Amino acid sequence: MTTNRQWRVKTHPQPDQIIGEEHFDLVESGIPAIKDDEFLVRTLTLGTSPAQRGYVDPRKPDIVPVGDIMRGRGIGVVEASKHPDFQPGDWVNASMGWQEWSVQTLDRGPVQSMDVLSVQKVDSTLRPSTLHLGTLGSAAFAALYGIEDIGEISPGKTVVVSAAAGGVGSMACQIARVHDCRVVGIAGGEEKCAWVRSTVGCDAAIDYKNDDVAAALDRLCPDGIHIYFDNVGGPMLDDVLLRLAMHARVVICGYIATQYQPAKSPGPSNYVHLLGKRARMEGFVVWDNVARYPEFFDKLKRWYDDGKIVRDVEEVTEGIQTMPAALHSLFTGGNTGIRLVQVSPDPD
Amino acid sequence: MTTNRQWRVKTHPQPDQIIGEEHFDLVESGIPAIKDDEFLVRTLTLGTSPAQRGYVDPRKPDIVPVGDIMRGRGIGVVEASKHPDFQPGDWVNASMGWQEWSVQTLDRGPVQSMDVLSVQKVDSTLRPSTLHLGTLGSAAFAALYGIEDIGEISPGKTVVVSAAAGGVGSMACQIARVHDCRVVGIAGGEEKCAWVRSTVGCDAAIDYKNDDVAAALDRLCPDGIHIYFDNVGGPMLDDVLLRLAMHARVVICGYIATQYQPAKSPGPSNYVHLLGKRARMEGFVVWDNVARYPEFFDKLKRWYDDGKIVRDVEEVTEGIQTMPAALHSLFTGGNTGIRLVQVSPDPD
Repeated sequence: MTTNRQWRVKTHPQPDQIIGEEHFDLVESGIPAIKDDEFLVRTLTLGTSPAQRGYVDPRKPDIVPVGDIMRGRGIGVVEASKHPDFQPGDWVNASMGWQEWSVQTLDRGPVQSMDVLSVQKVDSTLRPSTLHLGTLGSAAFAALYGIEDIGEISPGKTVVVSAAAGGVGSMACQIARVHDCRVVGIAGGEEKCAWVRSTVGCDAAIDYKNDDVAAALDRLCPDGIHIYFDNVGGPMLDDVLLRLAMHARVVICGYIATQYQPAKSPGPSNYVHLLGKRARMEGFVVWDNVARYPEFFDKLKRWYDDGKIVRDVEEVTEGIQTMPAALHSLFTGGNTGIRLVQVSPDPD
Repeated sequence: MTTNRQWRVKTHPQPDQIIGEEHFDLVESGIPAIKDDEFLVRTLTLGTSPAQRGYVDPRKPDIVPVGDIMRGRGIGVVEASKHPDFQPGDWVNASMGWQEWSVQTLDRGPVQSMDVLSVQKVDSTLRPSTLHLGTLGSAAFAALYGIEDIGEISPGKTVVVSAAAGGVGSMACQIARVHDCRVVGIAGGEEKCAWVRSTVGCDAAIDYKNDDVAAALDRLCPDGIHIYFDNVGGPMLDDVLLRLAMHARVVICGYIATQYQPAKSPGPSNYVHLLGKRARMEGFVVWDNVARYPEFFDKLKRWYDDGKIVRDVEEVTEGIQTMPAALHSLFTGGNTGIRLVQVSPDPD
């Protein structure tokens, strides 16, 4: 590579618009030069997350201005350095943006969002680079924190996960299985449901596009639902609330069903069952626990080494040109698992 | 009194029907005789609670059959006894039903509901008898448990209470004030709001019948709502969810706004703010903590003795004939505070 391809923000999508390639421009520039205390990073892998939609949502703070490089974290390899602590060959996790090369430094000034936190060295022997953003990355951290800390999981429970074929959802299912729970994943379409059973390892899957979700929950969760890990909201949440077990936990990780809808959607009227079931519905944001990321990583890495969780849930496309489509897919059910982009090959 | 007036169930109200006098018959019988191990109790005070609506709801278990005496706990005085542990003059808290006299025994067979739990002696020097069912009774226990254990209250928080002029609500407000919180009560009508400020001691009151609740919450809770003690549900819950402070607690004690409606009501679409606010919505049933009632009583009694909570929130009418109207009032906003009936005078 002798050029630096970059995705720059072309327009901010409207509140009810699905984000996609039309909101970005792919431009080419030269590979940047570095100054003292800077180092040049070649992007290996970029991650996607529904949170990135917020980086260009004018209703939110600290958005990326039109014309700027789209924000996003990635794993990269140092190719040149004028910083004493970073040497060529080092791998880093950093906010490199949607581009093939970036200049990094440790001093970025005031932190504006979680995504522009510090540059961190990562273990370059842990390969492929996708693993750092995928099975052992922030989607997995969110699933772990949500299932363990908010869901208060214990063995033998019945756990239902919506968007079970998504990034966080597929990890939540795997983690609940590690805890010896019975896991029912909800996903859209026969193909995804087959994947949720075989690759993710769920005990059962419900195809919300073709099955009667309520009837399927009745059949698959005869003793009620102890933990609902919800990425979706909408009518499915209401179906689950009606079938909670005593002292159930509803973990609110997202609400994609209603998040970018033009009109306000009806709420879950079955929230009233929280009372009789002495149940709890709680939201969380994994970023609050950034100090615990090393702990989360260590736990997931141990499970990964032991074969208890698998990285087959990573869905990787190649080349920076696939970034907008990758993000788009998160909002259209187009992804299966943790969607990542391998921007350039991992070094030998 | 030489007769025993009793309210017997005439018909079970329809699911969407407000309970009232038309569902009961007032009949007279003789004062019952007692056998070995029984004792005769004269009813002093009977309590009311929205839960009593459930005793005649055919959708629920263990309802009171048509023709039977309506179920309900009260405080009474032993007038005759063939039980070694109970002497004339003893006061008891028991399931005596809506009647002036009852025969009690310690052995009631299998417990069918919380209301037919054991007979308990109570301190006959703690007067008036209403205090045992009111300021130091189960409505107060529910408020205490909800505010402290579910709401996780701490000093300096902003607490909003719906149905603040109701029994549990007025106690929740008082208890939140004891914890040095700023308390905003929501009630219906100017008169109730004045009472909520002066008698209950709220810092502010919102009249949901005449005020713009959302605008009032904005004005009165500029830093957001830390605890919402909700007896109501409905649109007010949605207004509050939009204004939660970080790590807020929504305590679901009831949902009277939608509970006996003919059609299914829309749910709180603003539940999605539980996510960004890392907030929790949780239901509870105070009966689960019956083992802790002595602890609750002791705490409330201490506050009562210290003048930190007042019994002016008890609203007492006289005579067994006022029972159906008393229960009815809970569902029509007709009550102010903890609604009780003094069935016969406390002994000297």
